[in-house]
Amino acid sequence: MALERRKFVGTFIHSKSLTDLEICEEATIGVDEHGKIAYITRPGPDKAPDGWDSVHTIKLEGNKFFFPGFIDTHIHASQYPNAGVFGKSTLLDWLNTYTFPLESSFSDTAIASKVYNRVVARTLSQGTTTACYYATTHVPATNLLADICLKRGQRAFVGRVCMDRMSPEYYQDESTESAIADTRSCISHIRSIDPSFDLISPVITPRFAPSCHTATLAALGALQKETNLPVQTHISENTSEIALVAELFPEADSYAHVYDTAGLLTPKTILAHAVHLSPTERQLIKSRDAKISHCPASNTAITSGRAKVRELLDEGLTIGLGTDVSGGHTSSMLSEAREALFVSRHVAMTDGDEAKLAVEEALYLATRGGAKVVGLESKIGGFEMGMDWDAQVVGLGDTVGTDEIDQSEGLLEIFGKETWEEKVAKWVYTGDDRNTLAVWVKGRLVHKRNGFTI
Amino acid sequence: MALERRKFVGTFIHSKSLTDLEICEEATIGVDEHGKIAYITRPGPDKAPDGWDSVHTIKLEGNKFFFPGFIDTHIHASQYPNAGVFGKSTLLDWLNTYTFPLESSFSDTAIASKVYNRVVARTLSQGTTTACYYATTHVPATNLLADICLKRGQRAFVGRVCMDRMSPEYYQDESTESAIADTRSCISHIRSIDPSFDLISPVITPRFAPSCHTATLAALGALQKETNLPVQTHISENTSEIALVAELFPEADSYAHVYDTAGLLTPKTILAHAVHLSPTERQLIKSRDAKISHCPASNTAITSGRAKVRELLDEGLTIGLGTDVSGGHTSSMLSEAREALFVSRHVAMTDGDEAKLAVEEALYLATRGGAKVVGLESKIGGFEMGMDWDAQVVGLGDTVGTDEIDQSEGLLEIFGKETWEEKVAKWVYTGDDRNTLAVWVKGRLVHKRNGFTI
Repeated sequence: MALERRKFVGTFIHSKSLTDLEICEEATIGVDEHGKIAYITRPGPDKAPDGWDSVHTIKLEGNKFFFPGFIDTHIHASQYPNAGVFGKSTLLDWLNTYTFPLESSFSDTAIASKVYNRVVARTLSQGTTTACYYATTHVPATNLLADICLKRGQRAFVGRVCMDRMSPEYYQDESTESAIADTRSCISHIRSIDPSFDLISPVITPRFAPSCHTATLAALGALQKETNLPVQTHISENTSEIALVAELFPEADSYAHVYDTAGLLTPKTILAHAVHLSPTERQLIKSRDAKISHCPASNTAITSGRAKVRELLDEGLTIGLGTDVSGGHTSSMLSEAREALFVSRHVAMTDGDEAKLAVEEALYLATRGGAKVVGLESKIGGFEMGMDWDAQVVGLGDTVGTDEIDQSEGLLEIFGKETWEEKVAKWVYTGDDRNTLAVWVKGRLVHKRNGFTI
Repeated sequence: MALERRKFVGTFIHSKSLTDLEICEEATIGVDEHGKIAYITRPGPDKAPDGWDSVHTIKLEGNKFFFPGFIDTHIHASQYPNAGVFGKSTLLDWLNTYTFPLESSFSDTAIASKVYNRVVARTLSQGTTTACYYATTHVPATNLLADICLKRGQRAFVGRVCMDRMSPEYYQDESTESAIADTRSCISHIRSIDPSFDLISPVITPRFAPSCHTATLAALGALQKETNLPVQTHISENTSEIALVAELFPEADSYAHVYDTAGLLTPKTILAHAVHLSPTERQLIKSRDAKISHCPASNTAITSGRAKVRELLDEGLTIGLGTDVSGGHTSSMLSEAREALFVSRHVAMTDGDEAKLAVEEALYLATRGGAKVVGLESKIGGFEMGMDWDAQVVGLGDTVGTDEIDQSEGLLEIFGKETWEEKVAKWVYTGDDRNTLAVWVKGRLVHKRNGFTI
């Protein structure tokens, strides 16, 4: 689908590095007909190349800025109806009580259609331009999720869940062979709708070690080698889960070794949680260049533990953020960034101030970090020449005057003396979807808040 | 101001006790011309007494319910412009870097007017029907806050802050005498606008022990004895603060003893934070029947620590919740309830599952618990005959159908199979101000969300 060239003018904010959030006022970004950033002028008057004189211009004023789209590196699309429903459970009882019954209902594609349309629309409205989705075991429903992401324009990794043991009889793969055949079936479908996996990619998805036989893990590892597709799974979320892995895989040196032995610890592997990794496991993961999805909201909500993100970063591991709906209560990556800041403060209470993340670090993890986790750091996560225009307009509302509050503008209050750094902090700590005014993926407008005109 | 009698019909939810959340469908509550609950019929057809046949009826349907207004037992109204701005600070540097400069600007009543109008309107829109406010040291601005609460109809405790040492020269009381005189001045003003402290009450407010000379604390204690007014202050928020108290009050056995010696540990005293209390201090506080405001968002944000709420509850202490804006990032008591649940999970990670609070417990703390903390448990916090109608309509939105998302309805998603308990959990974990459709204080409608008709 060819697009029109456009210019985006105003304040741009994005991460240059983990600690350096660039705030660039009065800049211009030209986005070409392929949805790519063709040129950037900053700061000052537009220095457009030839042929860019009369293109449509989207200009921001006041407390508004462009920000890269969020990258949610771990979200269970099928669990969306359970967001906020987890009681006092922890991982293993949570799965049996809340999760498996819900997921199994996706044998009905009408249910899948309703939930998947909703979660894709909702996450787009919250600025999530890329999502790594767990679906369910069901091929038709998983294919439908891929169709919906493509239609609504969200960049997505769509994983058909493989699980052939330690799961309820009513909801598991029959055999290694059927798990692989069904996974191949989803890969074929995605190839048929997006041949070069340009927007939608399959992702090989063993649920987690305890729910897969050794043979199934090995077969999925072989499939990864054959296809060079990404892999997503869970690791070291909860201490009971870790004990279960040790019991089920007595020959393995550790949880991470289970995946490594199966050929599943690759540079294209996304490991969700990584709360309780041993030093040896961290070293193994680093040596394989596998990636980590930190899910602080979920780890707090279902009491899994506190991932020591500062340590992981210092050791050179690659980390992004994941909402992990519905272990996590929120589908918002902005909220998730906030939760990362809070969990780092809880780590700091025992380990010292070094553990604290700063606002700019949380935003890095939600954008550039996530881009690295999904292997798209050359395409998304920041504003650079040649990158795709995966972006959002963030609006912080008018500066407080004498008017009454306008709830449609959100909760964030700008009183007028704030620096841009303080405005960004207010966004992260007090903002919500009402502050996301427009969202583009690969140059295509995929969401616009009511009342915002461009 | 005389009101019309009204009937409120539909589902009512409120706490009967810490663990028992009553969900009462098809009920009717009659509210009289004084804003008091005159009768309750539950469940079933309205059994109105004589004279209630033709009164105006407000009837809820679908995913809507009546809930008691929230009681915020600790919020610094003057710090509202800094919500979300705290960097990586902890209490003592946070005060000097962010807080004192802002508070001192309230010598300008134009600034005070803008901020106080905003914070009262905003908290009302989030369902806070009662707030215990810290203002600043300034008499005119503090009196203005009382005026604004009265005008907008929010039940409030308004405290002129006393501080005569360990504070910047540009922002502190000159002497014990001036601190007391200024406090008396605010008390007189409130008496002049609300003679029986029916809606607005003064509250004696030593900032915290380190910022008051011993003589000032003693004089405020004497003032409490003379007036029998409530007291609010801070206690044991942060370990450096506790060390400072030990240094400044070498003769005192503990932080709590400093207040006790001054006559400030009374049944009408609200102690914010109480994160690091010793067993002896907890015993002393209990013996004096002083109350505790738990501020989990703040304690996490500025890395103060984790209050062990389950232990405090088990010991029989009286606890409510406080947003503690702007140590806390949020002015929403719904968010604060969520933070209480999360902090309790972090406590559980080290102390065991018993520490976890349930949704119904967090809601109790935000309503009935808070009512006890402010000494109004016979008037507010639940739905009982003779209580004031301090209430909100909570709307969870239409059950998800084929329509696109409507951001004005909020983020909460009802898919149709949820029990009422699950709906309430979704509200606490995924709701926001958009789910508060209308708010009454003492029978007066004080907020209505755009688009909601009653």
